[in-house]
Amino acid sequence: MGKSNRIPKATITRLSIYYRQLELLEFDGYRMVSSEKLAWLCQVNPAQVRKDLGYFGEFGVRGVGYDVIDLQAQIKKILAVNREWNFAIVGIGNLGSALLEHQNFPARGFNCVAAFDNDPLKIGKPTAAGLSIRDIEELEEAVKELNIEIGFITTPATAAQSVADRFIMANVNAIVNFSPTRIIVPDCCLVENIDFTVKLDTLTYELHHELGI
Amino acid sequence: MGKSNRIPKATITRLSIYYRQLELLEFDGYRMVSSEKLAWLCQVNPAQVRKDLGYFGEFGVRGVGYDVIDLQAQIKKILAVNREWNFAIVGIGNLGSALLEHQNFPARGFNCVAAFDNDPLKIGKPTAAGLSIRDIEELEEAVKELNIEIGFITTPATAAQSVADRFIMANVNAIVNFSPTRIIVPDCCLVENIDFTVKLDTLTYELHHELGI
Repeated sequence: MGKSNRIPKATITRLSIYYRQLELLEFDGYRMVSSEKLAWLCQVNPAQVRKDLGYFGEFGVRGVGYDVIDLQAQIKKILAVNREWNFAIVGIGNLGSALLEHQNFPARGFNCVAAFDNDPLKIGKPTAAGLSIRDIEELEEAVKELNIEIGFITTPATAAQSVADRFIMANVNAIVNFSPTRIIVPDCCLVENIDFTVKLDTLTYELHHELGI
Repeated sequence: MGKSNRIPKATITRLSIYYRQLELLEFDGYRMVSSEKLAWLCQVNPAQVRKDLGYFGEFGVRGVGYDVIDLQAQIKKILAVNREWNFAIVGIGNLGSALLEHQNFPARGFNCVAAFDNDPLKIGKPTAAGLSIRDIEELEEAVKELNIEIGFITTPATAAQSVADRFIMANVNAIVNFSPTRIIVPDCCLVENIDFTVKLDTLTYELHHELGI
């Protein structure tokens, strides 16, 4: 367990990005890829690709490159996405509804097994994905019943902390926070904050410095 | 312009994250911060913080750290977010509606000035943000009229490429693609793909390797 602490989080994020490019390469019919090509596709430098993969073993063949299918399998194993994960969404407004329908989640083995809200007008309503919106009061019970391992928070900012607290009390150890606020969790819980505006900053940087706008 | 090519994209992303932590530090009443503390808050190592900022100048005082307010201003300038940017959203389903209402965009100077769809039942309808949904056929005209600099694509995957083409024809040089597909653009156009599942992979990695799940 200790070893993983030494691997930078940025490496893990890049593995995920390498994996997506490998999928596209496979789709395009490639069987092998050089670290140079993979790096170019992912907008990093080739030494970075070799270093990131080097934390986990020897995956390439010198002068030949990486096997596109084999490397995908290796990365899936490292990222622990070689199995399915169940998640639940709390807050079924526009964003929660969008995530319920998002095709990428089931395609990648992330199954939304429950949707919660505290609005009596929403509770009991069916979602496009075939779930029935449940009362937030049923969260703890549903976590056990459905083996919910990851909690998505798509509530307004004011409700985010109390929802996080409920997830933690229900022994959900991983939270994806889409609400525009920070939440405080104990060390036993992992949080990923989704902030769309970080990507926008990258874009404005490039617009300004590369395109001169 | 050439110089920016030598700065890694990951550095730009981290500047954006440093900036957000500096805001929170200011909110919490801090006036100075060490590279160690800033690094810890951002989950990177202190040498990385110093290296990233070092691309752009000398911002800290040895043994004292960084001025929380001044460094925010410097980073805003580097990222070109020291001014406002206008964007438009194409595809007003759940995700498009969620983004229209998202508080973080206006708070960070990103103004949604137009919303488009091709559904006759949606065109002309008001949005929660006070816009009226426009016909996608009006895109080119609206880009000029409203000075739209960034285009968000929140359509189904099947429509994403044709919307990207329209943005490009209308001289919008930056696209944020939320649709679960890749789009192809010429070199004059910048694209950021938003893939929520990359963040999930980081979480599953940590769940598996750090929490043993």
